[in-house]
Amino acid sequence: MSVTAAKGFTAAGVAAGIKENGNPDLALVVNEGPRRAAAGVFTSNRVKAAPVLWSEQVLKGGVLSAVVLNSGGANACTGPRGFQDTHATAEKVAEVLGRDAAEVAVASTGLIGVLLPMDKLLPGVDKAAAALSEHGGEKAAIAIKTTDTVHKTAVAQGDGWTVGGMAKGAGMLAPGLATMLVVLTTDADVDADTLDRALRAATKVTFDRVDSDGCMSTNDTVLLLASGASQVTPGYAEFAEAVRAVCDDLGQQLIRDAEGAGKDIRIEVVNAAGEDDAVEVGRSIARNNLLKCAIHGEDPNWGRVLSAIGTTSAAFEPDELNVAINGVWVCKNGSVGEDRDLVDMRYREVHIVADLAAGDATATIWTNDLTADYVHENSAYSS
Amino acid sequence: MSVTAAKGFTAAGVAAGIKENGNPDLALVVNEGPRRAAAGVFTSNRVKAAPVLWSEQVLKGGVLSAVVLNSGGANACTGPRGFQDTHATAEKVAEVLGRDAAEVAVASTGLIGVLLPMDKLLPGVDKAAAALSEHGGEKAAIAIKTTDTVHKTAVAQGDGWTVGGMAKGAGMLAPGLATMLVVLTTDADVDADTLDRALRAATKVTFDRVDSDGCMSTNDTVLLLASGASQVTPGYAEFAEAVRAVCDDLGQQLIRDAEGAGKDIRIEVVNAAGEDDAVEVGRSIARNNLLKCAIHGEDPNWGRVLSAIGTTSAAFEPDELNVAINGVWVCKNGSVGEDRDLVDMRYREVHIVADLAAGDATATIWTNDLTADYVHENSAYSS
Repeated sequence: MSVTAAKGFTAAGVAAGIKENGNPDLALVVNEGPRRAAAGVFTSNRVKAAPVLWSEQVLKGGVLSAVVLNSGGANACTGPRGFQDTHATAEKVAEVLGRDAAEVAVASTGLIGVLLPMDKLLPGVDKAAAALSEHGGEKAAIAIKTTDTVHKTAVAQGDGWTVGGMAKGAGMLAPGLATMLVVLTTDADVDADTLDRALRAATKVTFDRVDSDGCMSTNDTVLLLASGASQVTPGYAEFAEAVRAVCDDLGQQLIRDAEGAGKDIRIEVVNAAGEDDAVEVGRSIARNNLLKCAIHGEDPNWGRVLSAIGTTSAAFEPDELNVAINGVWVCKNGSVGEDRDLVDMRYREVHIVADLAAGDATATIWTNDLTADYVHENSAYSS
Repeated sequence: MSVTAAKGFTAAGVAAGIKENGNPDLALVVNEGPRRAAAGVFTSNRVKAAPVLWSEQVLKGGVLSAVVLNSGGANACTGPRGFQDTHATAEKVAEVLGRDAAEVAVASTGLIGVLLPMDKLLPGVDKAAAALSEHGGEKAAIAIKTTDTVHKTAVAQGDGWTVGGMAKGAGMLAPGLATMLVVLTTDADVDADTLDRALRAATKVTFDRVDSDGCMSTNDTVLLLASGASQVTPGYAEFAEAVRAVCDDLGQQLIRDAEGAGKDIRIEVVNAAGEDDAVEVGRSIARNNLLKCAIHGEDPNWGRVLSAIGTTSAAFEPDELNVAINGVWVCKNGSVGEDRDLVDMRYREVHIVADLAAGDATATIWTNDLTADYVHENSAYSS
């Protein structure tokens, strides 16, 4: 499973001592070939962590031999010293594997503004290299957890080829991308340009539409590595769909494990004039703290949906808006619709439909409710 | 005090039975003249409540004889029937006072999507008219409270003239304008154009920069009425400053009474390339839930400030950003600065300075921390 579901990959997850509690904190994923094509998508936050700056450069070559990931520290806002630490980490991995540092991506997650303990991280790379295995995917997924309560993996099978992956992320989840580290692998025999095209298409409709708390990270990284080990080159559409399916699966797991969340909220914007309008409206609803509190209280407070729609620049007329919550059209033509007492909100998933009555475009954004547990987790813990 | 601090105004606040708990819920403010000039600023939410749509039209004439305000229901998203109810309310006030309905502004606050109980509201207008008094300002301020724990009034004195006002607002506080109802009165002898100019200048740097929870209301209304009763026409600068001072005072009271808040956060953006950049950055920081949770936990988590700045389009270089929390420069040149343990966060006010090192413009945005009490209040109570 995980990043070793596809042939041609080994992985490991070890405790290097970066985390003070002794939990696993260092993961290594190695593409054993024969092909070593890769693509990556990174945070659109302009304050980028050192490993993001490094990996963006590395990915320009379209080749990755390995990815080293650590939890226990984001290595963001750490200045030139932080960038040197990322570089030294890539050099260390290259040395241990006998590859080139320019083919090693680095990803970090944890507290911003703290330097990584390199005296622990570098020996950890030796330890991880020694533990590399074709069955190491689960351990790698475990080692990148921060406040995640479970590790996240997913797999899609093609005809003779596989796409698998792992993800971490629980807070600071917002688009562009959602805050997280994701490594996807495939044994399909595809080139870097195809990987890039499939990955961007997939993230745009999956991770980019997961918005747990509106906070965009400095460290978001999604990588897709191809080993070619299956010796099969699938058609683009088939391959892209498999990548999308794995991204969608992992994105759903991120939402279900979001910090403190009690409800998963699916916001479906329909009849928008264009997809951009649909996404803008969906995000605005997803980021409305008052609505998120109401959902937590199982209160179908549709007025908060309308007030969120009203802050956007999307095409609509206020008196043509319709809103359904869990199948009940509580707002019709911008006014009172069906009886709100008919809405059953006992279950974890809440489905909001916002009908803009302005066209035929649609988009779905996922978010969570806002809870006291979210406040506690993010006020008591420096993350 | 309040709206009756200036000469030429009477006011009243009564319990009309709109609120089920029997608390005061209807306020009436009457301009007794001789002048009846007025200006207004309203929510920029495109989903506007019926009273906002009505009052915007009324204000185009630049004349107001009275303002009628109710709590216990926002009359937003209530369709044509809701608009008719607003119209009927204005007609009733006009009839009772012997004035024209086109000179009566209406403002409502409370739950969105519920029709007002007109059988209680209209008799309430009679009751309020009978209670009108030159000392009625406090009672009017009390009658417009929703989740406010205290009523809010402010006064500024000029040389022979006065500006006074009242405000309500505790949740759904965000710019454009902050969610609230505000009525300001003055006995200065100024025309409607001057009122409009002074009011827009004042709200832009006060209410518009109060962002408690990022949620923009459907009902925001700020009105300024001039009676001319002092027979003094102050210079524009002096008058505008008095209006600004009253708006600033009321805005601060809104922040201090924000739902569930334990900390008032003053975000001062300095050395921005322009004022728009400063405001954009300030708002982005003010809306970062993770930072707001950290402040609640008295954790000077400056990484969350940088990640919020990074999502903006403002001019800055990531490695030139500086951040101070309560006087300690915890971030210098985009990296680790002074020891975060030096930051004393025991007090209610928290002062964050974000230095963009990109120019000489500045702006200050006020927000609150995010607390479990905010979640409780907004999940248990349909507001």
